[in-house]
Amino acid sequence: MDFILPMEKHSKLYRYKYLALYHALREAIHEGTLPEGTRLPSTRELAALYGVSRGSVYQAYDMLHGDGYIRSAAGSGTYVSGAAPQLAEEPRRGAEIELSAWGRTLTGPLSGMKKTRPDMGGMISFTDTGPSLDLFPLAEWKSAIAAAVREELDASALMLEDAAGDIELREAIAAHLRRSRGIAADAEHICLFNGSMQALALLTQLLLGQGEPAVLENPCYTGISRAVAACGGIAVPAPVDGEGIVPRDWDARLLFVTPGRQFPTGAVLSPARRRELLAWAARRNAVIIEDDYDSEFRFAGRPLEPLKALDREERVVYVGSFSKTMFAALRIGYAVLPPSLVQPVIRAKALYEPVSPARLEQRALARFMRRGEYARHLRRMRRYYGEKHEWFRALMQKHAGELFELQPSDAGLHIYARWRGLAEDYELFREAAIAGGVQFRDTADYQWAPGAPAACFSFAHLDQEQMKEGIRRMADVWKVILSRRK
Amino acid sequence: MDFILPMEKHSKLYRYKYLALYHALREAIHEGTLPEGTRLPSTRELAALYGVSRGSVYQAYDMLHGDGYIRSAAGSGTYVSGAAPQLAEEPRRGAEIELSAWGRTLTGPLSGMKKTRPDMGGMISFTDTGPSLDLFPLAEWKSAIAAAVREELDASALMLEDAAGDIELREAIAAHLRRSRGIAADAEHICLFNGSMQALALLTQLLLGQGEPAVLENPCYTGISRAVAACGGIAVPAPVDGEGIVPRDWDARLLFVTPGRQFPTGAVLSPARRRELLAWAARRNAVIIEDDYDSEFRFAGRPLEPLKALDREERVVYVGSFSKTMFAALRIGYAVLPPSLVQPVIRAKALYEPVSPARLEQRALARFMRRGEYARHLRRMRRYYGEKHEWFRALMQKHAGELFELQPSDAGLHIYARWRGLAEDYELFREAAIAGGVQFRDTADYQWAPGAPAACFSFAHLDQEQMKEGIRRMADVWKVILSRRK
Repeated sequence: MDFILPMEKHSKLYRYKYLALYHALREAIHEGTLPEGTRLPSTRELAALYGVSRGSVYQAYDMLHGDGYIRSAAGSGTYVSGAAPQLAEEPRRGAEIELSAWGRTLTGPLSGMKKTRPDMGGMISFTDTGPSLDLFPLAEWKSAIAAAVREELDASALMLEDAAGDIELREAIAAHLRRSRGIAADAEHICLFNGSMQALALLTQLLLGQGEPAVLENPCYTGISRAVAACGGIAVPAPVDGEGIVPRDWDARLLFVTPGRQFPTGAVLSPARRRELLAWAARRNAVIIEDDYDSEFRFAGRPLEPLKALDREERVVYVGSFSKTMFAALRIGYAVLPPSLVQPVIRAKALYEPVSPARLEQRALARFMRRGEYARHLRRMRRYYGEKHEWFRALMQKHAGELFELQPSDAGLHIYARWRGLAEDYELFREAAIAGGVQFRDTADYQWAPGAPAACFSFAHLDQEQMKEGIRRMADVWKVILSRRK
Repeated sequence: MDFILPMEKHSKLYRYKYLALYHALREAIHEGTLPEGTRLPSTRELAALYGVSRGSVYQAYDMLHGDGYIRSAAGSGTYVSGAAPQLAEEPRRGAEIELSAWGRTLTGPLSGMKKTRPDMGGMISFTDTGPSLDLFPLAEWKSAIAAAVREELDASALMLEDAAGDIELREAIAAHLRRSRGIAADAEHICLFNGSMQALALLTQLLLGQGEPAVLENPCYTGISRAVAACGGIAVPAPVDGEGIVPRDWDARLLFVTPGRQFPTGAVLSPARRRELLAWAARRNAVIIEDDYDSEFRFAGRPLEPLKALDREERVVYVGSFSKTMFAALRIGYAVLPPSLVQPVIRAKALYEPVSPARLEQRALARFMRRGEYARHLRRMRRYYGEKHEWFRALMQKHAGELFELQPSDAGLHIYARWRGLAEDYELFREAAIAGGVQFRDTADYQWAPGAPAACFSFAHLDQEQMKEGIRRMADVWKVILSRRK
């Protein structure tokens, strides 16, 4: 049987085989490659032909059948149908639609998302920011989810305050922050978000007017700069050194800061500077947004108190998230708010979400925390990541110590490393590394102005062998570059 | 034992007994009602005292213990601790924080949420907008959730396009719309949202500039008017009659419309007017946002094609949701977008959510739809609601026919009813009805200018006896009003 489908193209577009097959068959029918009346291969034949399961072929055929693309004749097989579905028309592009000024600011790349899959073509990727799932307590999580399914259906539980999210989870977070962070948090001052980025973006919208300045660390997380730009705000980059952000008397009323572990450098903000920032906020009647994105995993030393714990005047918003402590797809973040911001934030969130989404996961997480599973998981992962952190440092210093100078750090899931050589060599090396099967994050993406070249290495998702292989590849790539020069 | 807790106050604030108890005990300790060293009742005693389960007392004690409010002495009971936790300080209100212009527009009530609980004090409530759960296929839903839990953890599945939501669910929605709505939808043009309100708010932000006009139906869903106000847009209210919105040559480039079943009147937009709206959009280079919020449940007649199915120039955005067809807490909505809007919408959504939240429910729903469970559930509920719809009409006409004139309708989960009497009597009646144990939605909330009094009666969540009782109460209330006049 002569049978060719555009499978390669659709396999790249769709990560599920049955979807790739469905779209490939549909395209072949539209294009006339499979004209009306063509007898299609049996599920067994097609499965063998494209190396997919028979179940995938069944699903694809079932979808095409539902759409009217194919028909079955009892006992004699499956045929391309005569009734061309409405969809057979040429796709219409239509008129270009004009966007609002806000819409037009949303250019730039979609940062915060992975652009590559770590397993693609055997690439060793230090760019993946998600946690390791090796020790994830799946049975306990499944049990918490199962218990929450029934509760979630109970619509009578939806009440006015529900844009802020599930009250039990907010209580559990408050208890966790009181115990582990020294933050005198109350559930009623906590609002849940779909990841910390939603908190950052909505707070910016709520606090920053068109043309007003906001102070950002340089370098900083790109999501924050996009949030500031989207509001028409003016970003004021503040330098960062080994003790974190360098305080000044900025003429601004909004500051974003990562005191626990500066992103991406990993610097811990010194106590003196913490006090200075709070004094600045009091003087300027300003709000500080403290993004504690990555400090649950501390391998050594005692954590410093967050700004929020020292915040006597209620000027600090503390933002946290579970995407790094649980798993990447769990988009639950939260903010501890000054009392006067609680109602405005709930109103802002309710404009988009009168009732909080992902109640099922919120209720399951509340149960998981209440049962002590979360605290147990954190303790276990802290040891596990601590070990990985040590391996990575040791392996890097041994095999790639001449390339990068690792910044000291005693927490978190990535290490910041300054390039020891020339800037142009860094560019050369980075591109050659990708060709050589290893990639890492370039911190130029986080900088406001070109600075000294540096890289971020995430290690949490890799095992010792993978780290070793990745570092070996970097060393090899560098050797090749050097040898070519000779 | 002399033991009084402020339980009544906290029972109103917290819907879970252990939380009410925890906060009541905490307050009593702060207030000095329970001074240091006080021996607390045993779990058994306290459970009996406040009519809660021993498990709730355990949980409350456990939380207080974790916070340091109480201590246990082996064999001798539980005591109020001496170490006053940091939280014992007076709550600090701090400085009033100034909001951005955007933040200041977010006044008005938080509509879209229930302000009352339907079961509170035996109230019969026709205000509840959620679906009935009587026939919800819980076992099938649980099975779909269980299957999705493992998949969700697979972080490697998170890719660039994931702000738009799970691709399998988008495919399942596209197939559903092709079959049941005649919309030539493709998964790549569908973006998932956390309920339809997020779609409406983000699209408004993306399309409507400061000071620009947007056409809204009068009356219309309050969420839309809030979205327009938040963008600084100017709402142009368009009159609605028995055939839906009355088309005009509005000088605007954005129109919100509910053609399938006008909200709240229930009018179905005539075919001629559908064509007029599309012609207007072509002439004005405008975008039409079609909110198909409530048309899955059609009891009689054939549905008309949505505007989107007739949209040859790609000017229509079709918005739908699962909150009414599945259950109220499932906040999954979607929009079918013109191709040129796909990237801008994904960028707008990614500003808040680089990765879509509620992946677990998205993947479970995809599975539920693919297995045919969703179509089966819709068919079953269509018959069930059709019956309820008939009961309600018959009961209302029989017992409260002199009060309200029910609008004709053959779909949806609520009935719009014009008040037959004087406007001042309507106000009197509405307040007396609440006192008499029955409530309904006042459509004045949806109007731009005071119009003839009318009410919305949601019936989906009530059984025949509850409807009868609610209608009887209304009739009784009216009798009392009339008798007092004599």
